Amino acid sequence: MLFMVHMDVNVPHGVDAEEFDRLKAVEKARAEELQRSGKWRHLWRIAGQYANISIFDVEDAAELHEIMLGLPLFPFMTTEVTALCRHPSAIGEG
Amino acid sequence: MLFMVHMDVNVPHGVDAEEFDRLKAVEKARAEELQRSGKWRHLWRIAGQYANISIFDVEDAAELHEIMLGLPLFPFMTTEVTALCRHPSAIGEG
Amino acid sequence: MLFMVHMDVNVPHGVDAEEFDRLKAVEKARAEELQRSGKWRHLWRIAGQYANISIFDVEDAAELHEIMLGLPLFPFMTTEVTALCRHPSAIGEG
Amino acid sequence: MLFMVHMDVNVPHGVDAEEFDRLKAVEKARAEELQRSGKWRHLWRIAGQYANISIFDVEDAAELHEIMLGLPLFPFMTTEVTALCRHPSAIGEG
Amino acid sequence: MLFMVHMDVNVPHGVDAEEFDRLKAVEKARAEELQRSGKWRHLWRIAGQYANISIFDVEDAAELHEIMLGLPLFPFMTTEVTALCRHPSAIGEG
Amino acid sequence: MLFMVHMDVNVPHGVDAEEFDRLKAVEKARAEELQRSGKWRHLWRIAGQYANISIFDVEDAAELHEIMLGLPLFPFMTTEVTALCRHPSAIGEG
Amino acid sequence: MLFMVHMDVNVPHGVDAEEFDRLKAVEKARAEELQRSGKWRHLWRIAGQYANISIFDVEDAAELHEIMLGLPLFPFMTTEVTALCRHPSAIGEG
Amino acid sequence: MLFMVHMDVNVPHGVDAEEFDRLKAVEKARAEELQRSGKWRHLWRIAGQYANISIFDVEDAAELHEIMLGLPLFPFMTTEVTALCRHPSAIGEG
Amino acid sequence: MLFMVHMDVNVPHGVDAEEFDRLKAVEKARAEELQRSGKWRHLWRIAGQYANISIFDVEDAAELHEIMLGLPLFPFMTTEVTALCRHPSAIGEG
Amino acid sequence: MLFMVHMDVNVPHGVDAEEFDRLKAVEKARAEELQRSGKWRHLWRIAGQYANISIFDVEDAAELHEIMLGLPLFPFMTTEVTALCRHPSAIGEG
Repeated sequence: MLFMVHMDVNVPHGVDAEEFDRLKAVEKARAEELQRSGKWRHLWRIAGQYANISIFDVEDAAELHEIMLGLPLFPFMTTEVTALCRHPSAIGEG
Repeated sequence: MLFMVHMDVNVPHGVDAEEFDRLKAVEKARAEELQRSGKWRHLWRIAGQYANISIFDVEDAAELHEIMLGLPLFPFMTTEVTALCRHPSAIGEG
Repeated sequence: MLFMVHMDVNVPHGVDAEEFDRLKAVEKARAEELQRSGKWRHLWRIAGQYANISIFDVEDAAELHEIMLGLPLFPFMTTEVTALCRHPSAIGEG
Repeated sequence: MLFMVHMDVNVPHGVDAEEFDRLKAVEKARAEELQRSGKWRHLWRIAGQYANISIFDVEDAAELHEIMLGLPLFPFMTTEVTALCRHPSAIGEG
Repeated sequence: MLFMVHMDVNVPHGVDAEEFDRLKAVEKARAEELQRSGKWRHLWRIAGQYANISIFDVEDAAELHEIMLGLPLFPFMTTEVTALCRHPSAIGEG
Repeated sequence: MLFMVHMDVNVPHGVDAEEFDRLKAVEKARAEELQRSGKWRHLWRIAGQYANISIFDVEDAAELHEIMLGLPLFPFMTTEVTALCRHPSAIGEG
Repeated sequence: MLFMVHMDVNVPHGVDAEEFDRLKAVEKARAEELQRSGKWRHLWRIAGQYANISIFDVEDAAELHEIMLGLPLFPFMTTEVTALCRHPSAIGEG
Repeated sequence: MLFMVHMDVNVPHGVDAEEFDRLKAVEKARAEELQRSGKWRHLWRIAGQYANISIFDVEDAAELHEIMLGLPLFPFMTTEVTALCRHPSAIGEG
Repeated sequence: MLFMVHMDVNVPHGVDAEEFDRLKAVEKARAEELQRSGKWRHLWRIAGQYANISIFDVEDAAELHEIMLGLPLFPFMTTEVTALCRHPSAIGEG
Repeated sequence: MLFMVHMDVNVPHGVDAEEFDRLKAVEKARAEELQRSGKWRHLWRIAGQYANISIFDVEDAAELHEIMLGLPLFPFMTTEVTALCRHPSAIGEG
């Protein structure tokens, strides 16, 4: 199943910069691993913002939630989740 | 360049059903042609709504605008456009 | 998979009352059938509004979309869809 | 009487992690107890968010308020409350 | 149980003025009857708007819904419903 | 003159709990005194929220402002003020 | 008592132009009369919009409501009303 | 003085296509004339929408209003006006 | 030129009370001086909120910006600025 | 390609004033350099706010993102990005 997730990262004033950089490195590694596994199908930066648009291809909402919860930057994110399905005018799978 | 477009179709009460069906058929043909050309890279239905999420791969904003304006259902749409770029954690092109 | 759907029905001024009543009767029959099949697990009226909160238990977003699109009142609805999953503090299935 | 409550948990930066974990454990125990009593009829996680959708079956708004106020994480929540009633197309109780 | 209802009346352009006046007269009679019965405890006009703030004292949400649905102007209203309960600092019943 | 005030209390993380409890006690005493004087005509808790709906009966907006400013919890509140007047369908004073 | 009113005029498509011009002429005469009486203290156009910002000096909310309701264009307006009072830093009356 | 204006054009269903095309032609001529005069300094299309972002260089808000009111499509527009001034980091005039 | 400014003051938790009182005193003096000069033509308190509605009569947007930036409480404000002009139905200057 | 960016700067309470001034000086130098290079084509202050409207002329969204990310005040900004293109009624390039 496909989900679009809009992730908006808000770094609170006063956060420890070194610790945050460490979280970002772990996040990057995790994101790459999930992309290689095919779960995180697309990952785009929203131009001009600390935010991204992602497409996940997962078993169900439970697997999506587990993935999101496991992201080191999840506590700093505001997220919006949209369930997608095949469009009747799509060629191929979408 | 990549753009995400959220298209929400609002069919006004009293629209001529036959004419609208004809527009939808033309829209479908146009969407398939643009997908085959690679300009309309992804097209997903938002579950439970007469709306879609699309990813366009175009030269620039001008080409995106020309495509959108040429859609037969454009006069019935509310659209939101988001400019995307490569994410530093993306593998491949995103 | 579970989805919560908020359906808000807007009856445009000037709609044919008899035709609308006919649609409502078909909608009621369809809703009852879907509840008996277990797909439409819960259906509650929002007090004081022509709106409902529904919980669907479907295969995936595609099945949810097909169900929604098949509702006779769908063209008159504004919908919001929320993907749900098991809560770690839930006893039983939720 | 049935109420739907949307609870959105916001953990402020700088909160004591150990203390927060303790509150979560108490919250979990309280939620399970209220589910067993039948007051907290449904509890679902919103996929991808630190938020839940709950259905409460209580005497009245006063009992709902007392329950909400007694949740250890209430001070960290933004809540929306919707009063529900039986839908004319519902089979069984909804 | 107490509910606050915010009713906002939108008269569509082109409505039949005589018919609308008739509905308003029926609405007025119904409102007065419900006030005398004690169900519609307070009814205030919002200054400068075709809108009101009402406090209902009903058995439960089902009774509130039945009352609202029975108002002749309900099809022209946008409503917001808020469940109220006793405030710990209130003297008397509120 | 009647005003409806929606008060939403936001307790910032890190506030001194003892001091806040002291302010709440003073607030309660002040609210009771204003209710006895007839100025604060109604005070209801919004179910499930640290918020209230109040009806004030004051000379004018100046007196309302003075009352609000004198509330110990005012610095922690977000407020919305709505000027009310007699509804043509109200029996008695509203 | 002073009230600020934001009036936004929405002319529906298909309105009779001649009749609307007649209403505007009556509105203008009424506005001038109310300004001369001192009730409508200020009347400014919002630049670039069919909207105005007005300051009324009236007995109370009831008088404001009666004035608003008497405006020929009231049925075409969306209004926002804000109760004002003397500012502690104002010199003169504000 | 510089103003940014966001104009969003909404064509109501059922508008006379020929008449609307005529208005668009007059609008185009008027826009070109105002650009040549230097009053309408910039005019950009928002990609994917029937909307534009404009920068006006006018004497004051009165002149801006007169220009906006004179646009044949003004009755079909929703507008937002933002007053601009020189930025301390701008080189040249901005 | 006339501008309406809505200033909403947000005092962050933990601000130094004495320093803030000092800023308020300077703000008051500055506001009075600007009123006497005729630049700050009206200053009203919004009843029940730490907010005001002001009308400025300045040369242009640049002068307005300079005034706003010079207010000691500016860093604590959220502001909305609306450009005003003469209303065709205004008698006198508005 | 042209992008309009609305940048809104939020200085958190408790930020180090000297460090912030240093960042502002670097920001100013960077903004001037980007304007000279033609990338940052227009930069206007929004009157009465710590915010600006900017027009960027860049290769694509990737270059815009790189520029935004490189601004020293970016961590303190809320941004909105709008992709622009040539308007059919524009004379010259817009």
